[in-house]
Amino acid sequence: MRRTGKIMTTLGAAGAALLLAAGPARAEVSGETAYILNTFSFLVHGFLVMWMAAGFAMLESGLVRTKNTATICLKNIALYSVAGLLFYLIGYNLMYTEVGAYIGSFTLFYGASEAELALLGAAEAGPELIAPVVDQGYAAMSDWFFQMVFVATAASIVSGTLAERIKVWPFLIFVVVLSGVIYPIQGAWIWGGGWLSELGFSDFAGSTVVHSVGGWAALTGAIILGARTGKYGVGGKVNVMPGANLPLATLGTFVLWFGWFGFNGGSQLALGSAADATAMAIVYVNTNLGAAAGVIAAMALSQVLYKKIDLTMALNGAIAGLVSITAGPDLQNHLFAILIGAVGGGLVVVCVPLLDRLRIDDVVGAIPAHLVAGIWGTLAVGIFGGGDLVAQLIGIAAVGAFASAASAALWLGLKVTLGIRVSAENEELGLDMAELGMEAYPEFGHGSRTI
Amino acid sequence: MRRTGKIMTTLGAAGAALLLAAGPARAEVSGETAYILNTFSFLVHGFLVMWMAAGFAMLESGLVRTKNTATICLKNIALYSVAGLLFYLIGYNLMYTEVGAYIGSFTLFYGASEAELALLGAAEAGPELIAPVVDQGYAAMSDWFFQMVFVATAASIVSGTLAERIKVWPFLIFVVVLSGVIYPIQGAWIWGGGWLSELGFSDFAGSTVVHSVGGWAALTGAIILGARTGKYGVGGKVNVMPGANLPLATLGTFVLWFGWFGFNGGSQLALGSAADATAMAIVYVNTNLGAAAGVIAAMALSQVLYKKIDLTMALNGAIAGLVSITAGPDLQNHLFAILIGAVGGGLVVVCVPLLDRLRIDDVVGAIPAHLVAGIWGTLAVGIFGGGDLVAQLIGIAAVGAFASAASAALWLGLKVTLGIRVSAENEELGLDMAELGMEAYPEFGHGSRTI
Amino acid sequence: MRRTGKIMTTLGAAGAALLLAAGPARAEVSGETAYILNTFSFLVHGFLVMWMAAGFAMLESGLVRTKNTATICLKNIALYSVAGLLFYLIGYNLMYTEVGAYIGSFTLFYGASEAELALLGAAEAGPELIAPVVDQGYAAMSDWFFQMVFVATAASIVSGTLAERIKVWPFLIFVVVLSGVIYPIQGAWIWGGGWLSELGFSDFAGSTVVHSVGGWAALTGAIILGARTGKYGVGGKVNVMPGANLPLATLGTFVLWFGWFGFNGGSQLALGSAADATAMAIVYVNTNLGAAAGVIAAMALSQVLYKKIDLTMALNGAIAGLVSITAGPDLQNHLFAILIGAVGGGLVVVCVPLLDRLRIDDVVGAIPAHLVAGIWGTLAVGIFGGGDLVAQLIGIAAVGAFASAASAALWLGLKVTLGIRVSAENEELGLDMAELGMEAYPEFGHGSRTI
Repeated sequence: MRRTGKIMTTLGAAGAALLLAAGPARAEVSGETAYILNTFSFLVHGFLVMWMAAGFAMLESGLVRTKNTATICLKNIALYSVAGLLFYLIGYNLMYTEVGAYIGSFTLFYGASEAELALLGAAEAGPELIAPVVDQGYAAMSDWFFQMVFVATAASIVSGTLAERIKVWPFLIFVVVLSGVIYPIQGAWIWGGGWLSELGFSDFAGSTVVHSVGGWAALTGAIILGARTGKYGVGGKVNVMPGANLPLATLGTFVLWFGWFGFNGGSQLALGSAADATAMAIVYVNTNLGAAAGVIAAMALSQVLYKKIDLTMALNGAIAGLVSITAGPDLQNHLFAILIGAVGGGLVVVCVPLLDRLRIDDVVGAIPAHLVAGIWGTLAVGIFGGGDLVAQLIGIAAVGAFASAASAALWLGLKVTLGIRVSAENEELGLDMAELGMEAYPEFGHGSRTI
Repeated sequence: MRRTGKIMTTLGAAGAALLLAAGPARAEVSGETAYILNTFSFLVHGFLVMWMAAGFAMLESGLVRTKNTATICLKNIALYSVAGLLFYLIGYNLMYTEVGAYIGSFTLFYGASEAELALLGAAEAGPELIAPVVDQGYAAMSDWFFQMVFVATAASIVSGTLAERIKVWPFLIFVVVLSGVIYPIQGAWIWGGGWLSELGFSDFAGSTVVHSVGGWAALTGAIILGARTGKYGVGGKVNVMPGANLPLATLGTFVLWFGWFGFNGGSQLALGSAADATAMAIVYVNTNLGAAAGVIAAMALSQVLYKKIDLTMALNGAIAGLVSITAGPDLQNHLFAILIGAVGGGLVVVCVPLLDRLRIDDVVGAIPAHLVAGIWGTLAVGIFGGGDLVAQLIGIAAVGAFASAASAALWLGLKVTLGIRVSAENEELGLDMAELGMEAYPEFGHGSRTI
Repeated sequence: MRRTGKIMTTLGAAGAALLLAAGPARAEVSGETAYILNTFSFLVHGFLVMWMAAGFAMLESGLVRTKNTATICLKNIALYSVAGLLFYLIGYNLMYTEVGAYIGSFTLFYGASEAELALLGAAEAGPELIAPVVDQGYAAMSDWFFQMVFVATAASIVSGTLAERIKVWPFLIFVVVLSGVIYPIQGAWIWGGGWLSELGFSDFAGSTVVHSVGGWAALTGAIILGARTGKYGVGGKVNVMPGANLPLATLGTFVLWFGWFGFNGGSQLALGSAADATAMAIVYVNTNLGAAAGVIAAMALSQVLYKKIDLTMALNGAIAGLVSITAGPDLQNHLFAILIGAVGGGLVVVCVPLLDRLRIDDVVGAIPAHLVAGIWGTLAVGIFGGGDLVAQLIGIAAVGAFASAASAALWLGLKVTLGIRVSAENEELGLDMAELGMEAYPEFGHGSRTI
């Protein structure tokens, strides 16, 4: 008997019997053990979220055309690097350190606490050195690591929408400001304990803080940058520019799904008690159910509407399901998670053509999957999760207004100074040859020069 | 001195000395700590197994032809979604809840226990709330998550064998029944504590429960569906239809190997005691040694028999090595693990041409790697692992008979109602254009229309 | 408030209050809990490093030409298998068991300790059985697993440099000796507690032990094997032979970065105390900052020097940043980590053309990224990390001399016996057809026969 047999051995001998014999006091987790488990949860879940950077890279590599593939690869590894450096140098402090209502403090160096340095520097770890560290709850840098990978996710969302026509360096300058300033400010309002947090706005793992913010930055960028040449013809005609490598896009989606267990599970922020472990398990399950429902809803709807099952809709359905459940993955009714994810997946199928009708050229479908589903998920916390619907609406609007305005100002500033769009010839030639001087697939077919 | 120095610091100061001073009682893990560790083991190992879904997707994407690649991607993400939803709605309860000898109970909603909900709902976590939760041994939903990813693995096995000719929706209906009913019933017999468990049948992580069951479903499907058009010519001629993207197939195999540490390691089912941690480490090592031996055996045998080293044989050798060691990865003699894996890898090289001689068209080689190696691994527990060989034989036969009969009935039912095979024109055109209306690699060479 | 709120709940109820009430003694981690956490750290970080094998496979698959792609896939999965088997059968004991100054003992079977076997074999786990196991600090086989994946990394480095012209079986024989003998001997000097360890040489996670050793083996191999035909023309002309699949190379780099959290984080070697968890968090952060700085430095330098941003330089910049920080990722000043990684990334941009000027043909750039950056990182510990610069120089020189001499002798021995280089026709044809009889991408463009 697999499920219960082994566990009973464990607890039968070491745990349950003692528990009964010695009373509830035996059930305790020591403070130092809790510190270790909290820290390790940040690290494990953090590396899962870091891996999502690879997921975005593969998703976007698969959905652009071959002539722009190497460039999107470069942008993805560069943006993850830039986001990490900037969130270290500036962002984290603005978001989390001594936050007033609107913003935190500014400092160039963030490191382990004095108590931690004292413990690490001592020849012997006496209780008087351990206790103040344990009192922190977790290692300071493990929290930094976990929070850092979230800002990288927000930046990743932008690169997909704007692919195939934006210049590399101006894009990276946008990422500098996004991850150093824009993201942390609204993050301070919510997760840093600022005014939206005080108001009761609730966003467990970032439907709004991460995904909507990335989505707003992408949307304003797409409008200011304009569509790819030839994407929209006369009379509302939309030219399909199919992605060059759908298995890579599929791989990228699986990576995101995998990494999302870190994104949502780690956002429990603690693993030092039975309550935390229990809640974390619920979060994992809802995350998976939401994504699965998003896939099936998107597939079914595209079958009904278009008589074909569109793979890219199914993939974006998974992502939209994940984004939707991200604001409230701690729901105890798992059927709600299925419902929330399914609505998210359905929204993708509806919104992708809608954006095309508005001539907003979103190369990978990130705006429906991250912005629209992010708004939906944040609302769903108010509807199904016991949150305050008014606070949710205020938070969505405030973050939307701030992120859009700040992004638009930045995109416009970049446009009139450095320029953000490659020349028409370079767009035709492809960014890989134009900006990098190389081809992504030099031996395959006609490569980047035919389409 | 890397290996022992650091550990000595830790234990020297905090552990070993205290242990000696205070006696063995100091060595204990508290019940709550054990609960957290058991739960976290399910979650960590569960996400590793979830990632195997990506491995199957890449393996199969690499081994089909370009004209069917997008479809196999779709099937893989869809089957993982379907399996997760069905195992939530039906399967888990049939397999694990109040199992009589043959089957569990039926309920549409499965969630955290009352004790867990009470703990999560309380403003303060007092010992009277924590104790009953700790007494469970692990968070209920963490176990659900871990068990769910196994049923998805079984379903993944089927899609590879039947690629390039099966319709999408009927395939997914098969997955609905497989993951909601067929898999859970035989699972209840073994892991749910049913009659095979009572008999002494032993299958640590699922050589039979997961891999053979997937293999039987694939085998019956392959027979009922028939071979791909043109695969077998007159006079026993076998036409090679080479996979389109071998690096992706390689990636998929590495993903499976990586994920298998979760598959086997997590099947220890507990991490709350020194004994569990010790056993888990042994499982990891045997898992790796079995796979490595499978690769080398398959390479050597294909060099000897065919004078070439076949990459796909090496990849399937890894998988067969992993499947073989899965029934008994807790063996204490690691040389046996090497031997078991090597035999598994060798079986692949022998069985792939054998299936072709029988005109059973297994696109990715899943039947040798999962069914044959699964049977071998289950027997090996009786031979090397101290298991009861008769019980092992009975279990293999009973599960084989049930899984084959149920699968065959279902495949035949689908065949006479919806039909399971695409038309000859659509097979020629490729499933990607026929069922999805898209190409996986629209810019590469002649793409899906030449082969 | 996301960051602190949740944690406070946890500790407020269960940890911090009790800590204050009961005094520092409550902060302790029990010996058994520490044993479990130490063991689990080895397993989790070990599976991350195992995954790096997939990273090397993808990186190298992306950077070779199509006609040699299947072969490089085969070499990567085979070398991981060979390294694991040989490190089990021979290597681990030479490196870690009863090391005198220069080498350990030799035995064919390594397994769980007697104390562990007694615990696992007992019907009931009494304290008298648990205590001696706990006293070990970690499960023996978890340490084996973690150390094994490091030797595989060293072997992976070699395959990239020598791609596109080396025969499969002689290459694997080299891996047998590298992982069974060469790597463990120098490893015994440093991590096994041998003479370099006594001297004060410091290498936290293997800038020298792993990366430089792999680099020296690659460098001597490249010299003895010679450049690919046509790579270097008359008058110093260098023919570019571009990699066939840059998204795969990008994926591989992300895999390496992801896996490196295991490589460096797990090298803390313990997780059983607050001090260990704190140090591990610092290691994660420095690892990420070093890599990020390597990317940005390589991009900026290639923009300045060549007026283009070279994607492969950015990717190798990430790897070089990671290798550079690997000798001292426990630095408490994170700005130094940024500096160290940036110098590593810059070194790649400088050294790649330098190697070409020397007509040393390094297909994937492994020598700059692993050997040069490995030396730099090892020196950096002496400069920024409080290490002994003289000891660092002696260690670099001693390991370099030994690894080069042993590798050169082995390459030369293989050259005059089996031969190490494929024939000129087979090189022209491609190793995939010549050695494997298959194509990696049979349907894409002209496939392997055009370039």
